[in-house]
Amino acid sequence: MRTVTAIGELRTAVRQARSGGWTIGLVPTMGALHGGHLSLVRASVAKCGFTVATIFVNPTQFGPNEDFAKYPQTLESDQRLLEDTGCDLLFAPVKEDLYPGGFGTWVEPDAAVADILCGAYRPGHFRGVLTIVAKLFNLAQPDVAYFGQKDFQQAWLIRRMARDLDFPLEVQVLPTVREADGVAMSSRNRYLSETERRAAAVIPRALGAARALAEAGETDPSALGGAALGVLETEPAFRLQYLEIRDAETLAPARGSTAGKLLVAVAGHVGGTRLIDNDVIAVPAPHKPARQEEVAHVP
Amino acid sequence: MRTVTAIGELRTAVRQARSGGWTIGLVPTMGALHGGHLSLVRASVAKCGFTVATIFVNPTQFGPNEDFAKYPQTLESDQRLLEDTGCDLLFAPVKEDLYPGGFGTWVEPDAAVADILCGAYRPGHFRGVLTIVAKLFNLAQPDVAYFGQKDFQQAWLIRRMARDLDFPLEVQVLPTVREADGVAMSSRNRYLSETERRAAAVIPRALGAARALAEAGETDPSALGGAALGVLETEPAFRLQYLEIRDAETLAPARGSTAGKLLVAVAGHVGGTRLIDNDVIAVPAPHKPARQEEVAHVP
Repeated sequence: MRTVTAIGELRTAVRQARSGGWTIGLVPTMGALHGGHLSLVRASVAKCGFTVATIFVNPTQFGPNEDFAKYPQTLESDQRLLEDTGCDLLFAPVKEDLYPGGFGTWVEPDAAVADILCGAYRPGHFRGVLTIVAKLFNLAQPDVAYFGQKDFQQAWLIRRMARDLDFPLEVQVLPTVREADGVAMSSRNRYLSETERRAAAVIPRALGAARALAEAGETDPSALGGAALGVLETEPAFRLQYLEIRDAETLAPARGSTAGKLLVAVAGHVGGTRLIDNDVIAVPAPHKPARQEEVAHVP
Repeated sequence: MRTVTAIGELRTAVRQARSGGWTIGLVPTMGALHGGHLSLVRASVAKCGFTVATIFVNPTQFGPNEDFAKYPQTLESDQRLLEDTGCDLLFAPVKEDLYPGGFGTWVEPDAAVADILCGAYRPGHFRGVLTIVAKLFNLAQPDVAYFGQKDFQQAWLIRRMARDLDFPLEVQVLPTVREADGVAMSSRNRYLSETERRAAAVIPRALGAARALAEAGETDPSALGGAALGVLETEPAFRLQYLEIRDAETLAPARGSTAGKLLVAVAGHVGGTRLIDNDVIAVPAPHKPARQEEVAHVP
């Protein structure tokens, strides 16, 4: 695997791959790679002739009081991990090349979706995300770009951006990869002490409770939310930011009548570390008695 | 020349051209074509193997009180004009394909430049322009995209967008094409009555006065602006919106010390029709006496 830092080198490598007839897969990351990232790279390697991973801790998606300055930087071990997946190229640019002087053009996400869930707590976050992803799309010109379901809202907005702005590519969103105790893999798990790490397991347990209730036939979103909340409240080290049940297709608030896929999304803190997770649960339409006019037609 | 309306047909045609080894030129227009548009198409045909012109009256760049509903639509004569230039493909999509339900992702221009000049009078205009141009860049995937200097601020923001978002293409801005009396060609000139059309000639006369003064050695932006204003005031049918002198590279207000290229930009109304025009004038650095410390070193 080659590592390049200059935009020109990336463009040349991609052009060569393209002229060799290969499809191009892109896996944008902020480094501090874990099994979730690696599953995306492996999916790309399996499907695309040429896989580009990128590592760039994007400053424009961090708020002023967030963890940009201390975000883990582990380039050498990241390179070894990528090497083992069969990744072809690592693009690890410097900030000055991606945000040159006078930078001022932004990709603004749909406010109706950017300002809910995590967006309500991280103003400007998704603008930063969409802007860097649009840039990486234009730099690597992939046929397929891979993102993880753990960042569900991010993946939704990227998919919508790709559609709205007609990017000529497919956005693939792959399942969250979890540790043995169910905790979603995340670069930010490195911030957790051993005790905090154990406390974090309350999140997948809460999601599991909602899923179990749905599998037992419950379709009411507030009942499902209540089940998850009941579990979260058993862990005093977990401070809830939000627990929301939404339509997984539209991200509109789920109602009692919502059928199809429900997103159960959780965010909160363990110590100073913000963690997010989610699950998508299929629910049938709630049972409704046959309507009068339908009954009337029965012979 | 083929005309296509479906996005899929455009993508297929562009892919074929690309796989044939041709470079692709793009000329985005809103139709009602005139000599200015045609000069862009001819430049593309001369340089690129495959030229795509687009005609789409983009609703998102019009304000609520602007002329979207009455904007001239002249597809058949536009097709004949393009045919004669050697254009390969005309893409003339419908609104529903470019702005499907749930559309919500926008390209936001640098506010410092989007809110001055025309932007001060047309809030949201350049957001609409950048968004549709980004879409057309992604749909046609050109190597070169052509725009006219008449829309100087638009061209500046598109160039900046292409740089900031790393679009893999070159933005070419070509000189304004003028009628015999100097009036800049514009689709909106069709709105003018004969009397109004004659009155519009005051604009290039005013720009000419500023240029003549600069060529006579004047470098002070306010003197150049004064010369243009003096001419504009001779035409009672012209209602000035703005006359500004700015640094043509940065669009910052020009000062007495600005050397290099000055943008002289005018906007105003003749009857109900809004017209814009501009000129770029090279000025030398104003003469400064040698500084004390420099003088002191002379033997």
